[in-house]
Amino acid sequence: MQRSIATVSLSGTLPEKLEAIAAAGFDGVEIFENDLLYYAGSPREIRQMCADLGIAITLFQPFRDFEGCRRDRLARNLDRAERKFDLMQELGTDLVLVCSNVAADSLGDTQILVDDLRLLGERAGARGLRIGYEALAWGRHVNTYQQVWDIVRQADHSAVGVLLDSFHTLSLKGDPAAIADIPGDKIFFVQMADAPILAMDVLEWSRHFRCFPGQGEFDLAGFLAPIIRSGYTGPLSLEIFNDGFRAAPPRANAADGLRSLLYLEEKTRNLLERQTAEGTIAPVPPASLDMLFAPPAASRYDGVEFVEFAVDGEQGTKLAGWLERLGFARAGQHRSKDVSLMRQGDINIVLNAEPYSFAHSFFEAHGPSLCATALRVKDSHSAFERAREFKGQPYRGLVGPNEREIPSVRAPDGSLIYLVGQAENGLYDTDFVLNPNATPSGNLQRIDHMAMALPADSLDSWVLFYKALLDFEADDEVVLPDPYGLVKSRALRSRCSSVRLPLNISENRNTAISHALSSYRGSGVHHIAFACDDLFAEINRAKDAGVPLLDIPLNYYDDLAARFDFDDEFLSELAYYNVLYDRDAQGGELFHVYTEPFEGRFFFELLQRKNGYVGYGAANVAVRLAAMAKVRSGSARQARL
Amino acid sequence: MQRSIATVSLSGTLPEKLEAIAAAGFDGVEIFENDLLYYAGSPREIRQMCADLGIAITLFQPFRDFEGCRRDRLARNLDRAERKFDLMQELGTDLVLVCSNVAADSLGDTQILVDDLRLLGERAGARGLRIGYEALAWGRHVNTYQQVWDIVRQADHSAVGVLLDSFHTLSLKGDPAAIADIPGDKIFFVQMADAPILAMDVLEWSRHFRCFPGQGEFDLAGFLAPIIRSGYTGPLSLEIFNDGFRAAPPRANAADGLRSLLYLEEKTRNLLERQTAEGTIAPVPPASLDMLFAPPAASRYDGVEFVEFAVDGEQGTKLAGWLERLGFARAGQHRSKDVSLMRQGDINIVLNAEPYSFAHSFFEAHGPSLCATALRVKDSHSAFERAREFKGQPYRGLVGPNEREIPSVRAPDGSLIYLVGQAENGLYDTDFVLNPNATPSGNLQRIDHMAMALPADSLDSWVLFYKALLDFEADDEVVLPDPYGLVKSRALRSRCSSVRLPLNISENRNTAISHALSSYRGSGVHHIAFACDDLFAEINRAKDAGVPLLDIPLNYYDDLAARFDFDDEFLSELAYYNVLYDRDAQGGELFHVYTEPFEGRFFFELLQRKNGYVGYGAANVAVRLAAMAKVRSGSARQARL
Repeated sequence: MQRSIATVSLSGTLPEKLEAIAAAGFDGVEIFENDLLYYAGSPREIRQMCADLGIAITLFQPFRDFEGCRRDRLARNLDRAERKFDLMQELGTDLVLVCSNVAADSLGDTQILVDDLRLLGERAGARGLRIGYEALAWGRHVNTYQQVWDIVRQADHSAVGVLLDSFHTLSLKGDPAAIADIPGDKIFFVQMADAPILAMDVLEWSRHFRCFPGQGEFDLAGFLAPIIRSGYTGPLSLEIFNDGFRAAPPRANAADGLRSLLYLEEKTRNLLERQTAEGTIAPVPPASLDMLFAPPAASRYDGVEFVEFAVDGEQGTKLAGWLERLGFARAGQHRSKDVSLMRQGDINIVLNAEPYSFAHSFFEAHGPSLCATALRVKDSHSAFERAREFKGQPYRGLVGPNEREIPSVRAPDGSLIYLVGQAENGLYDTDFVLNPNATPSGNLQRIDHMAMALPADSLDSWVLFYKALLDFEADDEVVLPDPYGLVKSRALRSRCSSVRLPLNISENRNTAISHALSSYRGSGVHHIAFACDDLFAEINRAKDAGVPLLDIPLNYYDDLAARFDFDDEFLSELAYYNVLYDRDAQGGELFHVYTEPFEGRFFFELLQRKNGYVGYGAANVAVRLAAMAKVRSGSARQARL
Repeated sequence: MQRSIATVSLSGTLPEKLEAIAAAGFDGVEIFENDLLYYAGSPREIRQMCADLGIAITLFQPFRDFEGCRRDRLARNLDRAERKFDLMQELGTDLVLVCSNVAADSLGDTQILVDDLRLLGERAGARGLRIGYEALAWGRHVNTYQQVWDIVRQADHSAVGVLLDSFHTLSLKGDPAAIADIPGDKIFFVQMADAPILAMDVLEWSRHFRCFPGQGEFDLAGFLAPIIRSGYTGPLSLEIFNDGFRAAPPRANAADGLRSLLYLEEKTRNLLERQTAEGTIAPVPPASLDMLFAPPAASRYDGVEFVEFAVDGEQGTKLAGWLERLGFARAGQHRSKDVSLMRQGDINIVLNAEPYSFAHSFFEAHGPSLCATALRVKDSHSAFERAREFKGQPYRGLVGPNEREIPSVRAPDGSLIYLVGQAENGLYDTDFVLNPNATPSGNLQRIDHMAMALPADSLDSWVLFYKALLDFEADDEVVLPDPYGLVKSRALRSRCSSVRLPLNISENRNTAISHALSSYRGSGVHHIAFACDDLFAEINRAKDAGVPLLDIPLNYYDDLAARFDFDDEFLSELAYYNVLYDRDAQGGELFHVYTEPFEGRFFFELLQRKNGYVGYGAANVAVRLAAMAKVRSGSARQARL
């Protein structure tokens, strides 16, 4: 399909926007009128700029409050239209968006609306231009695509067609199914926007909270599918009003926009194929399906194979000591590099202190931090190809004589995601001299989840990255109080939840998340949770080994006593071990404990899930954040002494 | 009245909150349960801390989902209550907030609710404790104070009373009038919160957007008045859930909270006196009225007498040159200091380059900037006393032999607000040697408005400052697009609008407002608008004098042509002079033009209002912000060359 985006979706001056749009690989651009008004160059110059950049001007927008206007204003409104037609011809675009009238005094009689649209269509048609009529969700009389199609059908003019915008239909919980019945050539243009589901005024929702497909909660494939079935072959365009996007770097944001369209096309194609197979729709012509992006299908992920920390000699020694106290064994040493392997249960942790390596440059930039995550995947080759087709950035580092090459792409924070195939046997034998006598002192079983801290304005970008490249799913956002502000968390999960990545952001300067970000000078891992089958045994061992556990106030346990039916002895045990507790509505239970942070940045969680508990202990995050703030102020006090 | 605030209204750890609350001058504090749970000290330690700080614990809150709970949970819920009663006795507070049940499976039968409340009251009463029952706006069955009073009345137990919260009534557009009919001693507690009017889910609105009285749009005096009439004599307490407050410095925020209560009390007292005088209510006993704060009444403001810029020798010379080109005369020189006076029409501008002065330290901190504003006021003495009683910070600087002393207070940005009384004749004669031959070359008449740039999180604080101390009014917030993010603007006005201060904020790093803030290292003046009666004559003169006017794109004028019935000649003239135009619904017209910024920070606006135009040209702010961004990037380019 021809992929397009509206200038209003990006920040910057008009040339900055156009350059970003071209660089991202879009085929076209909708010119939002204000961007043109505020630009010092002439419409002809803009036309030339787009031509030089290789992008088509797919639409000029918006033309407001026309049809059904007060009769004494009609002539004046037609004059206004002619002036905008002049402008369109200078710009070299033939299509204008006419959105449904919102004026309180506008007329709702269908015949008047039909006549007005036809009149405008005649004026446009006479100049070789076209009108795309769109229902705003807050239009005074017209706010559904069904009404728009009814009016367009009656206007019956070749220059008058339907313009669809997913937001206006889905925000009102409209059913897009009937779009399939509109002749494809009477749909002149399609705008796509996603949004989180918010219980608020629809106009405010639309103006501030739209986002790229895949970042919100609308069923956009369900909206696009009937459009494809209608036979529509025009542009698919993003029109995103979003406060964050207005301030985001336009190049990176435009790249996300293109990725979101590819993701949407894939989902739509899958949906159409499934519906065809199920016989719920008539077969879609292959030519229509083939317009849609078709990357290699997603592979199944099966947990974290290893994580790799970038360290130097000193921090590496220190972190190895921490891990040893947490029950890990020193399982191996790299054959040729300053890289060691710590192991326990199904958990492999690589500490990389090799100079002149990727890890080293990562360490230089961010200090001790997680520089790579290896995910186990059914088919690493197709997983890698999929990531590449979604514009993931492949990475190929130095490969020594005895080393394997594992396909990898850059995560949004610049760290690496290795894709380790099922076929990879003896992964560690090749690179490491393994210590056959290494025996972990603990019984931690696997990495349960890895929580990341990231800048507030990059959350949507991360979500889209994992959804598109790795086919992950995203949970709903939860908002949690830190003593110094709010923290928002949204968890990403592989299908079947074998890999879980809660993403944490904060817009306030002094929260735990913001402190982590400033220590990393960017984003980074916030904590890694290890699952086990007998938490108290693990904590006992860790305490004996001297692991510094995060101290939980006794008042928390008084409240547990009020909320749950625990006997006092068990509560004392929880309190003694600083164990936090949560129970979900289905009776699932979580027991978990945190370490203090390593070097004031990341920390570890030990947890035990019972009876199918699926969350992350959100009920306990506030008490954890308060305890972390106390540790920070204690460290700050020490540093001052 | 006893003035109180809930810990949830402030950021920080519990001790930080309590210290801030005491320092602000509150009499009491509501302990929000989570603040206690997350604190490592025992309830007894908190009790001692409050005693040491001289604040009473007025309330423990909340106790949720009790009345009408599923019958199989009642015994367990009573146990839970007894545990919380233990805690309250440790804390030394006798009152707990019980908010109406929100559980989907809770029972709504009034008799059950009455019985449950009475049962809880008996348990509480047996321990000398009391229950304040509150209707949450989103309660499952109970969401009005009328229902609460009905249930409390029927429960008929001395330990069970009504708890009122302004948000829960006013968010649902409830009428508070009937509160006056509740016996005052059956109202156990009153919580006050303001909020902007938002069309959104009431729970989300309540949890994130409450603000201090005077910062939002609720009629809080109208809510408090019937409470006073009921004979209530208990605490007046702030319970503010606000995302910004959760991250704001607690001491400054608590001070705002106390100021907001004083402001509310004054408004309520005025309302009650007016209602009594009008005979719409029965006379309120003097003892009730006298509980309410009564500062000196506000004085009438009558425009800006002068503004003062902090400069050094070099910047002073440069700014004087700018002002001269804008038509100002060099009207005088200070008798003893390096301070000069520029004058035109009714506008006086003081340029202060005196070393060892307030202006000098302001210049050192902020660079060339507005360091003082003198407002003309009917009675400067009572205006000053009012500001002081509202905890304004008086300022008294060095006074030389021939100088006047003018009462002044610090504005929120640390600059001074001088209060110049009507009686002050010959204000400038005393301090300045005036030049009798100085004749302005321009005809600018007066300062129309002064726009300020301030950090995003301080807007509410500024609004409250001007409302309380100076009795200003605040317009609704408008949101405006800068090419690099959003700008929000809220205008403050003296009654009769002789002084107008639009306040501008931006949460994005790269907007015009954020650039101004970083140049000031804090807040500062963004622009000063001068009004005149013949704008084209003034611009003509200014252009000839070499004033750099902000260049407006021609595309803007093409759009004006489409929107308004101007002839081409007039449009060409507007374009030639870079004049922006706006027309309001009543036919009021604004013509205005901007200079480029002085030293990349503040700039000047020349404007002419016609037919009673009252706004600030919001329709043109986006084009102005885009033009300013272009100037910035031009300057940045030049700086790089």
